[in-house]
Amino acid sequence: MRVLGVDPGLTRCGLGVVDGLPGRKVQMVAVGVAQSAPTADIDQRLLLIAGQIDEWLEEHAPDALAVERVFAQHNVSTVMGTAQVAGIAMLAAARRRIPVAMHTPSEVKAAVTGNGRAEKVQVQTMVARLLSLDALPKPADAADALALAICHLWRPAGAVGAPQRAPGSMTAAQRAWAAAEQASRRR
Amino acid sequence: MRVLGVDPGLTRCGLGVVDGLPGRKVQMVAVGVAQSAPTADIDQRLLLIAGQIDEWLEEHAPDALAVERVFAQHNVSTVMGTAQVAGIAMLAAARRRIPVAMHTPSEVKAAVTGNGRAEKVQVQTMVARLLSLDALPKPADAADALALAICHLWRPAGAVGAPQRAPGSMTAAQRAWAAAEQASRRR
Repeated sequence: MRVLGVDPGLTRCGLGVVDGLPGRKVQMVAVGVAQSAPTADIDQRLLLIAGQIDEWLEEHAPDALAVERVFAQHNVSTVMGTAQVAGIAMLAAARRRIPVAMHTPSEVKAAVTGNGRAEKVQVQTMVARLLSLDALPKPADAADALALAICHLWRPAGAVGAPQRAPGSMTAAQRAWAAAEQASRRR
Repeated sequence: MRVLGVDPGLTRCGLGVVDGLPGRKVQMVAVGVAQSAPTADIDQRLLLIAGQIDEWLEEHAPDALAVERVFAQHNVSTVMGTAQVAGIAMLAAARRRIPVAMHTPSEVKAAVTGNGRAEKVQVQTMVARLLSLDALPKPADAADALALAICHLWRPAGAVGAPQRAPGSMTAAQRAWAAAEQASRRR
């Protein structure tokens, strides 16, 4: 199974393609960053990022796209652009009938380090270790995209193809995550 | 000049097409709402809304697209979906080389009522009056989309084709708006 992880952002949008299966060794296929100039108009920035995402989908033909689930409280100055890029990434996948999933930062951290509150450098270190890379993937957005892809490959079976479902259809673990995220958003 | 106003939303996305020129009588061409079911997965909802926006762009061939500028502080539970829909609307326009502009709710209210803090019903009443409609446009999202289009047609000359420019390239009036919006975001 091949997953394209997308760490959405208008200035830098992390992209990482990983092959693997639940509980099995993962392998990096590609990693990079789609970029747009902060001085450009918003519609042109979205057009540029969308074009790069389309190219990655075309070239790597992933079986799924995993996007970071962004919360409105995180970094208010950039969150709207981040949500817009997440939206165009999900649309690009949907147009190609590629399943889309969203994972919270805590889920991603827990998947690669075992700790949902791990530091960024710990996540990067584990991403490099899990993918047998000689160096930490840079920039951080690229590493985050790889971590997202690994998280999706190793997600609990109950979460397969069930992004953003209503609380009633979640597994117990998913409900626990959702509650933890809710709690962290209130702080 | 023809403008498609878009009041972005995942459940209801208001769409309104208006013909006119700065300071001249405006005329409604079409009004409606793109919809998606809250129970569907997010990528499928975006796909559905994007398809409807594409149809409107195809059918009405507007000279510009005006989108409501959403702030992260407004209604946290729906703001991410709203931003995602704004993103796919701007992308759809950019792909057709249609210029995109964003207007804040205050700018829209000021344009159609003369008061940036006008009540919703006052905005609807003025939209109906300006467009010589027999009844208030419903639902509210559709009325807001028409108001956005009127706002864009009647915008100050300095704002033409200058969406989201850096502060240095703004007119004095635009800077005043920007400062007022900044202040309201801090509250």
